[in-house]
Amino acid sequence: MVSGNRSNGSIIPQRVALEIQYDGTGFNGWQIQNSGRTIQGELERALGILTREQVRVVASGRTDAGVHALGQIVHFDLVGDINLQRVCIGLNGILEKDISIRNAFICPAGFHARFSALQREYLYVIYNHPQRSPFMQYRALWVREPLDCEYFSVASRHLIGEKDFASFCRKRSADGNTVRRITDIEIKAIDSLIIVRIRGNAFLHNMIRIIIGTILDMYRKKLPPDHIGTVLEMKDRDVSGATVAPFGLYLNRVEYDPPLSTMQSAF
Amino acid sequence: MVSGNRSNGSIIPQRVALEIQYDGTGFNGWQIQNSGRTIQGELERALGILTREQVRVVASGRTDAGVHALGQIVHFDLVGDINLQRVCIGLNGILEKDISIRNAFICPAGFHARFSALQREYLYVIYNHPQRSPFMQYRALWVREPLDCEYFSVASRHLIGEKDFASFCRKRSADGNTVRRITDIEIKAIDSLIIVRIRGNAFLHNMIRIIIGTILDMYRKKLPPDHIGTVLEMKDRDVSGATVAPFGLYLNRVEYDPPLSTMQSAF
Repeated sequence: MVSGNRSNGSIIPQRVALEIQYDGTGFNGWQIQNSGRTIQGELERALGILTREQVRVVASGRTDAGVHALGQIVHFDLVGDINLQRVCIGLNGILEKDISIRNAFICPAGFHARFSALQREYLYVIYNHPQRSPFMQYRALWVREPLDCEYFSVASRHLIGEKDFASFCRKRSADGNTVRRITDIEIKAIDSLIIVRIRGNAFLHNMIRIIIGTILDMYRKKLPPDHIGTVLEMKDRDVSGATVAPFGLYLNRVEYDPPLSTMQSAF
Repeated sequence: MVSGNRSNGSIIPQRVALEIQYDGTGFNGWQIQNSGRTIQGELERALGILTREQVRVVASGRTDAGVHALGQIVHFDLVGDINLQRVCIGLNGILEKDISIRNAFICPAGFHARFSALQREYLYVIYNHPQRSPFMQYRALWVREPLDCEYFSVASRHLIGEKDFASFCRKRSADGNTVRRITDIEIKAIDSLIIVRIRGNAFLHNMIRIIIGTILDMYRKKLPPDHIGTVLEMKDRDVSGATVAPFGLYLNRVEYDPPLSTMQSAF
């Protein structure tokens, strides 16, 4: 139990972070829209019911419609006595089953889910099998023809480091700085799944989906995997590949310094 | 391409087996009912559209409402020229995405999906974590408190062999022979999942769900794992545990002799 600090009779709000999971299938993305169910909308509605206050929620990054999260981080401010376990259990009781509150943390006042984030890790899941799977629908990109993990590995090595990813950014969003740093990309095959794990400081709009789409296009056109270096250098969205489906993409982890695990938590 | 054998101007039908997967969530079980969508119903409807004939389908075993299949085997008879790949692709084109035809086989006339089956393998998946998972809804049984795989292993060893499983059979179905042979039970933990793999010659109605429910009940009551031997000996459904949720159960594999893999197949 943590009390909001009282000074001069007023209550200073306490910053709280949540670790959440969601199946993006039933959402029109993170951000509140004019229409459609959104994760932000559902969370703010649930927090309103729980606290009887209007609470505004900020995420580490907005996920697009259909994109999933295994470890999205959000923050907001609460006044009064805060019982972190009750916040988790209460919210999970109000929210529908496609969102889950995994943990809650008391953060320093300066903590910001988006601006304090040092690293983000995404997974892109490809279901690689000639026949469709009832269990991978809306959970992975289905690719029928056999893929070569080694090709993905070699191509992806060209993207490691601080680079201008203008070729891998949704056109309308490309104004401004398109330099990002990818720390590592790991490709792993488990049965019929190919899981691409990408870590970086931040990602441009659709960047990971265009990277995967470009490597797939290159593979199908039998281009050498090193060709992605040329695509990168050209800094032109017109030379990269398709934006693959959102439902293969999972926001897996967001890292902060100090890490959330060092803060007071519900579990 | 295989032709139905023509003799005396009549066409002798050809027996075909399919390997299918389904997400049981949207079905009222395998068998055609007075109401509700069933796997048998959807398959027979699709075969009717494809072949313009009324085709009756027999499964290796009926799965209950909500139970999934990764490798269900069914058989039926077709007359005329059979292109196995076209059967698979055609059916997948007609069926909704929660059923998938994985392969098709030309079988000897005496083959029977149910009566020729030598071994059946099921998986029961437990999601063991204090918070719910949006991705495991209808895919696994959610158990909040930490479970002990070793307890499950020790208890399950008592069930290996040819035994009378009357204590682990749905009451109304218990008339007749309740002796079955379980060949092996393997328990594996992967992240937050506990996967119980059970192989046997055949299973009574609800048998696996009652076995899992009984071990869970015993664990919660802090009974020794060997207690399941006593439950088995009493041959009484009243002394075993609850029937756990259907959506943790997957029919994984059915084995025949000769194996389907030795027969002419689509893929």
